[in-house]
Amino acid sequence: MTGAGTAAPPWDVVQWFNTERPLVLDALRGRVIVLGAFQMLCPGCVEHSIPQLKRVHDLFPSGDVAVIGLHTVFEHHDAMGPTSLRAFLHEYRVGFPVGIDRPGGGGDPTPLTMRAYGLQGTPTTILIDRDGRLRRQTFGHLSDLQLGAEIMALIGEGAAMTEQTGSAANVCSTTGCEMV
Amino acid sequence: MTGAGTAAPPWDVVQWFNTERPLVLDALRGRVIVLGAFQMLCPGCVEHSIPQLKRVHDLFPSGDVAVIGLHTVFEHHDAMGPTSLRAFLHEYRVGFPVGIDRPGGGGDPTPLTMRAYGLQGTPTTILIDRDGRLRRQTFGHLSDLQLGAEIMALIGEGAAMTEQTGSAANVCSTTGCEMV
Amino acid sequence: MTGAGTAAPPWDVVQWFNTERPLVLDALRGRVIVLGAFQMLCPGCVEHSIPQLKRVHDLFPSGDVAVIGLHTVFEHHDAMGPTSLRAFLHEYRVGFPVGIDRPGGGGDPTPLTMRAYGLQGTPTTILIDRDGRLRRQTFGHLSDLQLGAEIMALIGEGAAMTEQTGSAANVCSTTGCEMV
Amino acid sequence: MTGAGTAAPPWDVVQWFNTERPLVLDALRGRVIVLGAFQMLCPGCVEHSIPQLKRVHDLFPSGDVAVIGLHTVFEHHDAMGPTSLRAFLHEYRVGFPVGIDRPGGGGDPTPLTMRAYGLQGTPTTILIDRDGRLRRQTFGHLSDLQLGAEIMALIGEGAAMTEQTGSAANVCSTTGCEMV
Repeated sequence: MTGAGTAAPPWDVVQWFNTERPLVLDALRGRVIVLGAFQMLCPGCVEHSIPQLKRVHDLFPSGDVAVIGLHTVFEHHDAMGPTSLRAFLHEYRVGFPVGIDRPGGGGDPTPLTMRAYGLQGTPTTILIDRDGRLRRQTFGHLSDLQLGAEIMALIGEGAAMTEQTGSAANVCSTTGCEMV
Repeated sequence: MTGAGTAAPPWDVVQWFNTERPLVLDALRGRVIVLGAFQMLCPGCVEHSIPQLKRVHDLFPSGDVAVIGLHTVFEHHDAMGPTSLRAFLHEYRVGFPVGIDRPGGGGDPTPLTMRAYGLQGTPTTILIDRDGRLRRQTFGHLSDLQLGAEIMALIGEGAAMTEQTGSAANVCSTTGCEMV
Repeated sequence: MTGAGTAAPPWDVVQWFNTERPLVLDALRGRVIVLGAFQMLCPGCVEHSIPQLKRVHDLFPSGDVAVIGLHTVFEHHDAMGPTSLRAFLHEYRVGFPVGIDRPGGGGDPTPLTMRAYGLQGTPTTILIDRDGRLRRQTFGHLSDLQLGAEIMALIGEGAAMTEQTGSAANVCSTTGCEMV
Repeated sequence: MTGAGTAAPPWDVVQWFNTERPLVLDALRGRVIVLGAFQMLCPGCVEHSIPQLKRVHDLFPSGDVAVIGLHTVFEHHDAMGPTSLRAFLHEYRVGFPVGIDRPGGGGDPTPLTMRAYGLQGTPTTILIDRDGRLRRQTFGHLSDLQLGAEIMALIGEGAAMTEQTGSAANVCSTTGCEMV
């Protein structure tokens, strides 16, 4: 897992799907965030990343892990607008929240959140810990075995943290149950 | 993860491969053990379980996780003897230790360790924590995402223990919490 | 393979990709046609049908087999327009000709060629013989083994046909070489 | 498909499974033969070749295509004896006939039929036409699409032969054309 963990940059999203209200990092404090940067016409995203994000969303309890997609369009902008994305999310049965990264303009096709995170491309899997710190940012494929392990390591940090503040039972009963 | 966690039964092995000396639970205390019960002619073992055990063996540091195969032959005994197993382990590039479960005799084809663990069949994935307690026993397929998460949860217990000068162990044993 | 084989209905295409001039059945007479009806946001098409059509396009000589995609959009029309399709074909490295089926209008979302062939949905694999007769129309998945066999059966018909007109050597030398 | 097509060498088999009587080439004259040389502990055979042979066995009518396995053990002889092979065929649900190639002895671990065909190793897929001529011998992986096409090409030869009262056979043998 990447080192110390600086604060994850905020998300600059123009439109959200699969969520009633816009999502912001601070409101998710206390949960591990699995952020998947993708493009709907990126073959690697469709074949590997989206299905993996769905598996993570299915396996881990939403109280511990928030799975979020970020549509970082940096090519073929006209081909991947909101209407196309909405149909894509419907056809591919994507149930977790997905935000559209804000186009940057100024002759740079890279959207703003993608710039803030310095992403190389799609798919990129980003892990943010319960304190909102950026802990991993991997461009390309990440194995389920490693991703599952790293997510649980971050969940465990939270458990330990809370433990130290004395309410271990609740935290543990939550995190313990997930895995049954 | 499965419940309270009783002490894992000892292994009754007639012959070991890929290890200089016989393995015993006590000597592995402090490491998480991923024990894979298999048969070399069990298609599900060859297609899913063995490759998954190899991935676990490759990903996790041996200081934290010990991957061990247990050849629990309960059918076609003549077809899966030590000579055949040795060739199988060589051809399938299995590098982790593998033990041959002791035949039970007495008209019962089930070998002794398989009986002691009450295994339903193969493949079965068994997780034993750093304290030698049985924490999961799953017959059939376990996803990489879940297995990776559960292994890391057990690794985390050990980490927490060290951090918290032993008090964590009591908390866990009373609450049955895996996460502390 | 479906029975006697009636004449395949003509294609009503509004725009072609990956071909300099519009394709018509009569101009393809003499070649076996593998026509794949798909939608760019149909998961089954993206996962199975498109890759299979690419394999067919790579394996069989273009002199014997013409692989053609037909974009039969019957849902999410705004999401799968020509601009999106062009980007899709580029990102998914689709090199064979693809035509956009003409929207039907009149309150019926089904495009005209899709109606003429009576397609149930996407993906559908259609085989047309060297004489322009419809020989197979299968909705859903068709195995590579069966598809390869049926294509070769249709190629063989042509070979036999030509044989009877005396120029067997040329035909054979072509079809024989493909498979080397 | 590979060249002129010489007579396929006879099979020297010490024991047959899944057939009431020993199989010989002459008795199979008139059928296309798909002969799969394998070893039960060869990973590539278990993962790709055996399942592919089963698919061929399921798809093509037995009157046209005979699928036969040849157990060509050239290593770990003690690990892959008849008892082990019998269990393997049962566990992997192999329903087509399988013969054990005769050990060569004389210090050469290569069995006799494997020598006669000059096989490089396992898996090797061998195609023999309706006239008992060797038409393809491929070491390693052969795609379903290509295998299906080549089998049907050989089936078609027979069909053509029947249609054309025997003249086709001569044409083919002189031009080396597989398609007539």
